[in-house]
Amino acid sequence: MTQLSQPFAAQPLPLGMVGGGQGAFIGAVHRIAARMDGHFQLVSGALSSDAQRAAASAAQLGIAPERCYTSYAQMAKAEAARPDGIRAVAITTPNHMHFPVAKAFLQAGIHVICDKPLTAQLAEAEELAAIGARSNALFILTHNYTGYPMIRAARQLVAEGQLGDIRLVKADYLQDWLATPLEQEGQKQASWRTDPAQTGAGGAIGDIGSHAYNLISFVSGLQLQAVAADLSSFVEGRRVDDNANLLLRFKPVGSAAPARGQLCASQIATGKENQLTLKVYGSKAGLEWDHECPDQLRFTPLGESTRILTRAGVGANAAANRAVRVPGGHPEGYLEAFANIYAEAALAIRQQAGEVLEASAHQHYPSLHDGLEGMRFIAAAVRSSNQDARWVTLAELQAMQPA
Amino acid sequence: MTQLSQPFAAQPLPLGMVGGGQGAFIGAVHRIAARMDGHFQLVSGALSSDAQRAAASAAQLGIAPERCYTSYAQMAKAEAARPDGIRAVAITTPNHMHFPVAKAFLQAGIHVICDKPLTAQLAEAEELAAIGARSNALFILTHNYTGYPMIRAARQLVAEGQLGDIRLVKADYLQDWLATPLEQEGQKQASWRTDPAQTGAGGAIGDIGSHAYNLISFVSGLQLQAVAADLSSFVEGRRVDDNANLLLRFKPVGSAAPARGQLCASQIATGKENQLTLKVYGSKAGLEWDHECPDQLRFTPLGESTRILTRAGVGANAAANRAVRVPGGHPEGYLEAFANIYAEAALAIRQQAGEVLEASAHQHYPSLHDGLEGMRFIAAAVRSSNQDARWVTLAELQAMQPA
Amino acid sequence: MTQLSQPFAAQPLPLGMVGGGQGAFIGAVHRIAARMDGHFQLVSGALSSDAQRAAASAAQLGIAPERCYTSYAQMAKAEAARPDGIRAVAITTPNHMHFPVAKAFLQAGIHVICDKPLTAQLAEAEELAAIGARSNALFILTHNYTGYPMIRAARQLVAEGQLGDIRLVKADYLQDWLATPLEQEGQKQASWRTDPAQTGAGGAIGDIGSHAYNLISFVSGLQLQAVAADLSSFVEGRRVDDNANLLLRFKPVGSAAPARGQLCASQIATGKENQLTLKVYGSKAGLEWDHECPDQLRFTPLGESTRILTRAGVGANAAANRAVRVPGGHPEGYLEAFANIYAEAALAIRQQAGEVLEASAHQHYPSLHDGLEGMRFIAAAVRSSNQDARWVTLAELQAMQPA
Amino acid sequence: MTQLSQPFAAQPLPLGMVGGGQGAFIGAVHRIAARMDGHFQLVSGALSSDAQRAAASAAQLGIAPERCYTSYAQMAKAEAARPDGIRAVAITTPNHMHFPVAKAFLQAGIHVICDKPLTAQLAEAEELAAIGARSNALFILTHNYTGYPMIRAARQLVAEGQLGDIRLVKADYLQDWLATPLEQEGQKQASWRTDPAQTGAGGAIGDIGSHAYNLISFVSGLQLQAVAADLSSFVEGRRVDDNANLLLRFKPVGSAAPARGQLCASQIATGKENQLTLKVYGSKAGLEWDHECPDQLRFTPLGESTRILTRAGVGANAAANRAVRVPGGHPEGYLEAFANIYAEAALAIRQQAGEVLEASAHQHYPSLHDGLEGMRFIAAAVRSSNQDARWVTLAELQAMQPA
Repeated sequence: MTQLSQPFAAQPLPLGMVGGGQGAFIGAVHRIAARMDGHFQLVSGALSSDAQRAAASAAQLGIAPERCYTSYAQMAKAEAARPDGIRAVAITTPNHMHFPVAKAFLQAGIHVICDKPLTAQLAEAEELAAIGARSNALFILTHNYTGYPMIRAARQLVAEGQLGDIRLVKADYLQDWLATPLEQEGQKQASWRTDPAQTGAGGAIGDIGSHAYNLISFVSGLQLQAVAADLSSFVEGRRVDDNANLLLRFKPVGSAAPARGQLCASQIATGKENQLTLKVYGSKAGLEWDHECPDQLRFTPLGESTRILTRAGVGANAAANRAVRVPGGHPEGYLEAFANIYAEAALAIRQQAGEVLEASAHQHYPSLHDGLEGMRFIAAAVRSSNQDARWVTLAELQAMQPA
Repeated sequence: MTQLSQPFAAQPLPLGMVGGGQGAFIGAVHRIAARMDGHFQLVSGALSSDAQRAAASAAQLGIAPERCYTSYAQMAKAEAARPDGIRAVAITTPNHMHFPVAKAFLQAGIHVICDKPLTAQLAEAEELAAIGARSNALFILTHNYTGYPMIRAARQLVAEGQLGDIRLVKADYLQDWLATPLEQEGQKQASWRTDPAQTGAGGAIGDIGSHAYNLISFVSGLQLQAVAADLSSFVEGRRVDDNANLLLRFKPVGSAAPARGQLCASQIATGKENQLTLKVYGSKAGLEWDHECPDQLRFTPLGESTRILTRAGVGANAAANRAVRVPGGHPEGYLEAFANIYAEAALAIRQQAGEVLEASAHQHYPSLHDGLEGMRFIAAAVRSSNQDARWVTLAELQAMQPA
Repeated sequence: MTQLSQPFAAQPLPLGMVGGGQGAFIGAVHRIAARMDGHFQLVSGALSSDAQRAAASAAQLGIAPERCYTSYAQMAKAEAARPDGIRAVAITTPNHMHFPVAKAFLQAGIHVICDKPLTAQLAEAEELAAIGARSNALFILTHNYTGYPMIRAARQLVAEGQLGDIRLVKADYLQDWLATPLEQEGQKQASWRTDPAQTGAGGAIGDIGSHAYNLISFVSGLQLQAVAADLSSFVEGRRVDDNANLLLRFKPVGSAAPARGQLCASQIATGKENQLTLKVYGSKAGLEWDHECPDQLRFTPLGESTRILTRAGVGANAAANRAVRVPGGHPEGYLEAFANIYAEAALAIRQQAGEVLEASAHQHYPSLHDGLEGMRFIAAAVRSSNQDARWVTLAELQAMQPA
Repeated sequence: MTQLSQPFAAQPLPLGMVGGGQGAFIGAVHRIAARMDGHFQLVSGALSSDAQRAAASAAQLGIAPERCYTSYAQMAKAEAARPDGIRAVAITTPNHMHFPVAKAFLQAGIHVICDKPLTAQLAEAEELAAIGARSNALFILTHNYTGYPMIRAARQLVAEGQLGDIRLVKADYLQDWLATPLEQEGQKQASWRTDPAQTGAGGAIGDIGSHAYNLISFVSGLQLQAVAADLSSFVEGRRVDDNANLLLRFKPVGSAAPARGQLCASQIATGKENQLTLKVYGSKAGLEWDHECPDQLRFTPLGESTRILTRAGVGANAAANRAVRVPGGHPEGYLEAFANIYAEAALAIRQQAGEVLEASAHQHYPSLHDGLEGMRFIAAAVRSSNQDARWVTLAELQAMQPA
């Protein structure tokens, strides 16, 4: 197999969706991502808890009325029973629903493709991980930034040792859409994302900080040792953090001094639409990536000039080239990266079923394990901030969970 | 209707494809573009003149064997006769086949979505325009760069008069993939694109210069008066131009001095993957767009600071916002722009059939007329270059065609 | 007076220099900065502690032999006694000599222009501040980044309230020249800058972190409350930090939530030559500056498009325009910014002497007070890092100093 | 000798200036450039034809009253007669005065440093070249863009053959300061620069097009064969061109297809402050330079990733490094590049006098010959445009001049 976007089979996998009805943002993204390469076809949904909205959304999306559900539990049961039942479900609800929905489908033996963060609460994440371990169904978390070809190129460069010992990692995820009290004006996205009951204890740290942390892990391969976090709510009346400044310490690798890092997740950075940057500096080379220009990776071997590695360009490596659709100089973006996660999901599902035999060294999708790590990261940051930014280790959080 | 990517109907339009079998570049692009928003479903094809390759390609794409044709003529006839026949065909063959294929489908009453340039020869283009004028079928030319939201934003800014009188227009389309004699190594894309029998008289001027010219027309609204062109073939043995340097003169608008321009189309610009830039300078403002960063438009009102207008950002206008899928700061690219042309096609087809009633002031797709203008542009450039870069008017070319 | 670069008087001020002999980096910078606008003429020096090198350097620089000294103390005394004695001295020695040299010249009544950081030890800085308070001589610290016109533009924008309440401040100063153990190869710059006896307790935090901190203070006008710092030495055998990651908390302004910040000073960021970036996000607008492109300031009012304000361009304000030499689009750089500090010094010296009467609201030079604040910042960071990155307040450091 | 900015001698060369009194732009630039490295000291001037303004300017600049002249002819005579007379004169008048002033000083045996273009009329340029050939005095034309280190790096890369055969050269010099009829509002710079009697037959083509052409020649080493030019005056009432679009053909080098080019010089490109870009594409590599970011050079060997070569960085070559003052990452700009021309002048003057013996392979200053070539370029462009953009060869212009 050369590229993720190539068809794995003549017919798409039947897909269901929970959440993502009219007015939602991420549901539409999942649908395009699922459809882009023809790997999935949406045939079923519990698109809204409001029956009328669910039906209207389903009709608009070409879902047959009998496969439009108002309860995810009913949907899991019914679809599992159908001979032509869905093979995977996309969960695109607010965070607090990830756990019960994912649990229902995993237990019904249906593969789950779930938006991030994994759950609203760490304890739920621990439980879900245990459920997942006992299920044959796969669990794919849509940390979509790992789908960018140049992020995959970066991961390969690090894995090959081209950066030497990693010393410093910096990730900033800056937005400004919550610079005003939008949730007090009834904006739907702002409302649930700033409601601790729906989003969890973390605000910016959970919504976007978890992406930044996942990206660091994915590219650097480093394991987080501890965080010192300073979370703030700048907008009056806001119930969760809208800015998170962090120091990071990573576990040592070999005999080198352990890497350190900085992370900033802000939703009040006036002027920033959605800028995620990653910088990794090692003893042999450094690399920089900016989501505003995702087709490029700046790579600088120590003592040499900076090189602009480009998606599908002459300097792109195998991990990157597997994840592209069009030649260099034809920009790809967010939806293509998201679709790569769906393509990885389709591939893994086909492989598990024996429908595809071929494998690639560069296959990867964010897993339950990654999701659990992300939840520990969020919990550690919240605890650290509550204790005046003292260092909180991830081990400390694992220790406090029941077996 | 708010956005082009929203479903116009529950079920996609059945689509056929001519060309685009295994190993082709642009066929795969058309398929993703057709599929991205669920507006079309590929159900039929004459994907290759090689029967075995056609069948293999069709199977891989989920096309039923009975709708896999080895002749486009047969396909046009058969599909027109089916009650569930295709409503549109995508033509993704080399240029010299555009004419006969398009003619066959137009005459069968099937809408045509055709890659650019319109034909290989100007005379064919004139004839096709006449055929199109007599047909009820629509003709959509995939000048995909007009699908970029910020290109549409630019067009609206000009149309609103925000640039004042246009004075200077500059477009550069720079690639380097033909910097070596690739066609002599049997590379498929290079072979047909440098073969005058398949590609037409123009090389770079036709393949990419026509895009640059179309973009100028689309954004500026100006009509080309005359060109002075200096075409070259730098690579030894190459049979078409691989570099085209042009001066442009436009027809006057009102009493202002007529606009002038420069255009460069190069396939030997070492280091450039695929950079298309457009700059328009008017008496009241200037704007600049770079395909390497397509989500941004630099806009400078005279005497003010440059503003970075962004796709789906606060400064984006209605024409742009209609053509986006994801919020600002989430990059879109080439495939999304291409999909916008397909969405416009779907909309127009639905409107013609009375299936969609709503209309937008910002609807647009490149038409037979645009294609014919593009062929005149190519012919004028070739003629000018053959006559030592003398000014050749487009009127001169129209005059020489039979009625 | 319109611009800092205009002559304040027909004849330049006589200037002396301590340090900066052959092979030094910053001495040559000071000389160009002093000379660029004709405000100063170098006529005297104790350029090296090595008599032969001092003489050779002096001869090359056109300093008369009788004004070439081997002792700064002798120079201070001799020049103070001459009727044509220097009116200012530039101190360009390693850090540990700043204190004794500055003390000698201040006590001799000669104005001091001193490189940063103020001293090697905080206690020296406190003492020097006290000496300065008793002296009529001026003290100018060359925090040269405050000389950039667009940094001055940024300061004015904040001061005018255009950013609203400052919420988040981020400054990164990234270099890579110490990514290897350069000091073990005898490189002169690396040797003294990594020797605690010459450079002080801080490595990167003192050498470049102090610049970043000064820039934050200068632009934002905020006062630092506390720092949590994680300093590291990644290169084996290095005696000072080569990377510093910090969290910052600022004192509250009015009733708004107090601003927070992040700062990173690294000399092991492989691939970065000397990149200093400043980002300030407020409730009404955000701004970003990058030393790699110093003539530009990105300014985004909330809910509007980003504007590129340019040096001497239409969007530049009075504070910026006072500090430029050439029209917009003609790049200025590091030396011009440095020369602006010298021009401010010349202006202040002339004003104190009554030789220039005119004053500007935008006059500014980094002072002894700024230098002392910078030393407290360094000391706080070092202390915090030694105590596992606990928050250390600046007040805590002031408290521990003797009266 | 390592660097141009190092002192060649303890005492600066005495310099005079003609033009450049209060209110002038380029005079101040020349003074800073002359002073920056201490190579020159301004001691004499005919700064204005207005005696009072001349005296005021001289006083402000520290020029002794007896060396402040109101006539350039008198100045040339008097200074030539003084034992401490100037060794060089800087000519910073409007173009039409370059010829008589330069002639006077050359004939007085005083070296001339003259602003561009060489003269207002081609015939004057031819005559001046002849005069220069008979004089022992040197003539340095301040085509200051050749002073940029990365432009010198580019020249060396081409000279070393790293680009292979040059195929395509593109230079754009875009400004917008004449987008309105500024000359009708009495603005001094606009007035003389749009007055054919003072500026010559060319407007934008002469004022900035000549810079672009010189840059092409300097970097590529190519010789211009012919131009086809389309000059326009967009602003009503303007007496010279404010926009020039050109096609270029170069003389063949070896057996390779001769290079082609495009050049655009515009003073009505709304939104552009002063952007000069140069792109050179060869058979083995391409390079790109942008005056807005002058410390960088993008260099792309065929089939490799683009490299960002930086001034004083690891990828800079000998030609570049000789012309820098501060380490990589510390931006240099327009004044430093201009000062490099003055440094080259000082070096050449010292070498001619035997005061400096050392020489470098990378020495270069724009000469009378370059100036004459530039005048032929301007004349060819004007003639071509007057004849509907027909190709005009430079040979044709040489032929028409009297011997």
